Amino acid sequence: MNMKLYNYGTAPNPRKVRIFLAEKAADYELVEVNMLKGEHKTPEFLEKNPSGKVPVLELDDGRYLSESIAICRYLEAVYPEPNLFGRDAFELGFIEMRNRQMETELWSQIGQSWIHGPVVAKMGIYKQIPEAKEVSDVNVNKYYERLDKEFADIEYVAGDRFTVADITLVTGIDFASTLVGLKPDDSLKNLWRWHALVLSRDSVDDITSTTSL
Amino acid sequence: MNMKLYNYGTAPNPRKVRIFLAEKAADYELVEVNMLKGEHKTPEFLEKNPSGKVPVLELDDGRYLSESIAICRYLEAVYPEPNLFGRDAFELGFIEMRNRQMETELWSQIGQSWIHGPVVAKMGIYKQIPEAKEVSDVNVNKYYERLDKEFADIEYVAGDRFTVADITLVTGIDFASTLVGLKPDDSLKNLWRWHALVLSRDSVDDITSTTSL
Repeated sequence: MNMKLYNYGTAPNPRKVRIFLAEKAADYELVEVNMLKGEHKTPEFLEKNPSGKVPVLELDDGRYLSESIAICRYLEAVYPEPNLFGRDAFELGFIEMRNRQMETELWSQIGQSWIHGPVVAKMGIYKQIPEAKEVSDVNVNKYYERLDKEFADIEYVAGDRFTVADITLVTGIDFASTLVGLKPDDSLKNLWRWHALVLSRDSVDDITSTTSL
Repeated sequence: MNMKLYNYGTAPNPRKVRIFLAEKAADYELVEVNMLKGEHKTPEFLEKNPSGKVPVLELDDGRYLSESIAICRYLEAVYPEPNLFGRDAFELGFIEMRNRQMETELWSQIGQSWIHGPVVAKMGIYKQIPEAKEVSDVNVNKYYERLDKEFADIEYVAGDRFTVADITLVTGIDFASTLVGLKPDDSLKNLWRWHALVLSRDSVDDITSTTSL
């Protein structure tokens, strides 16, 4: 039996794992979970992931893993090449640090703008606070400016090679650009230089033409 | 030269690393950064961590790492025993999954209640939204109930042994209990059974008598 990835087309976290799997040239089957129809909250799905979220990886022995970066960590151990999490102690720490900065400093704010934004409003599943979105929108754009300055000196998020931290950043920015209304300003040339570099990889699909608000 | 950990006494993220270092019986020097005096935002400190946050680990060769779990990941590679992140591919994925659930499902909500709560109000550094705190307070208490159910069947967060996921949970709950006003209800016996088990370790200090709102 093949590995199965439980996926939802436009969600950024499953895309993170799909890019990771493509980098590893791993064989797997994609299973679509229609979140709009609530398929991630059925008793059957909650057995796979009690938190009711995608992605979920079903291993070839039938066990399950969830949380996108935890799935990637498992895949890194099973398919060590190309290395995406670091080879020695310092690199393991440094790449994790950069990955977490993308999560805690950027994704967290994109997430706030998402849950308090127009798409989630239409779903009517969440008590929205417009004031919260104003704050996080400002934070996201400030962080884009910080990244643009950083990319004047570094080629990739964690230095001179492509790592999981680039996957986290590109999925975050593309989600923000297409579904949250927070596309980085055209003037951020270094950030867009990095974006084009990452999009040039075979593993990274361009979602801008297929996904929009 | 010894490793140095840049620390702030009552903050939960540095405590996470202090517990991890104690588990590893690692030698290091503690350097206090007075956040109330803004010492984490000085040009000198921003060279160590451009994000202006503690903890920061200064390695014995003078390099720096920040983000608590990234520091722990580095330490795990340097001091492999006792193992706290997993030994094989599945365990590496599973422990990361559980650790991230504690972060994304509990810490994130405790964080919302903190930034919109009374201590941060006194600091006057953040535009607070009382409505946001009402939502996150509810989420934190719901998650305590979920954890209590889970601890009916498992001894530790990631199963049958102590891991980094327990360190993340205990530092989150103790922070919530002492400084955010979100102590788990006494009726959650399984959760408190787990808490007592973790507090019985030499590495885990009891902060309830020294820290309060």
